[in-house]
Amino acid sequence: MEISHIEHIGIAVKSIEEQLPYYEGVLGLTCYNIETVEDQKVKTAFFKVGQTKIELLEPTSEESTIAKFIEKKGEGVHHIAFATNGLNEALKEMENKGVRLIDMQARKGAEGLNIAFLHPKSTGSVLTELCEHPE
Amino acid sequence: MEISHIEHIGIAVKSIEEQLPYYEGVLGLTCYNIETVEDQKVKTAFFKVGQTKIELLEPTSEESTIAKFIEKKGEGVHHIAFATNGLNEALKEMENKGVRLIDMQARKGAEGLNIAFLHPKSTGSVLTELCEHPE
Repeated sequence: MEISHIEHIGIAVKSIEEQLPYYEGVLGLTCYNIETVEDQKVKTAFFKVGQTKIELLEPTSEESTIAKFIEKKGEGVHHIAFATNGLNEALKEMENKGVRLIDMQARKGAEGLNIAFLHPKSTGSVLTELCEHPE
Repeated sequence: MEISHIEHIGIAVKSIEEQLPYYEGVLGLTCYNIETVEDQKVKTAFFKVGQTKIELLEPTSEESTIAKFIEKKGEGVHHIAFATNGLNEALKEMENKGVRLIDMQARKGAEGLNIAFLHPKSTGSVLTELCEHPE
């Protein structure tokens, strides 16, 4: 596995609409996509900053993991996603090293990427995602 | 002001030494610098990931803001730093827009950068730093 860059930073917010004046009006970034991911019960807004995206995550239901995160910890950084290759091999290798995985195998994530989450217990409490372009 | 990329992500940890096996052994990143910033009461370890650095922050005293952060919120992402230009002008402009600033003017930060922090009250609870190369 080789990590090339930080693919995105996921930030939990109560309301994307309320955050747009900061990200667009103050930081001068451009929101290029807003979409709802029904099965995750979350609305997402994407901004590009160099190699990295900022992904705002707004819960669309109280049962959303994002709603629970906000309830417990407040708004703020939810996860960091690294861009990598050879994702399934990397997951196997990590498991052999004793890393606790949330996803044992890559699954489909936003924007068609193959993704897998590592458990914060193994990552110094930072919820960590690995992303791979599917080719 | 134009933000070009994410300069670094600051992560609060209890012990850099305990985190090295994850960042180096699991993620395959290389720690290129460890230094202690006496006046911040913090030890820092840097890793490069594409355009962005990961900066681990370990408190060297119980009075360190990082120690207080960990006590309150646990280990995890402490701040995000954006690379920009025209920092002092940007701060004035933000103040005029009602953004709450921690630093009213740029000051010297790690690695010789000019830096300033924005208050989480104005940034959706994400402690946010702006960094500028000093030329």
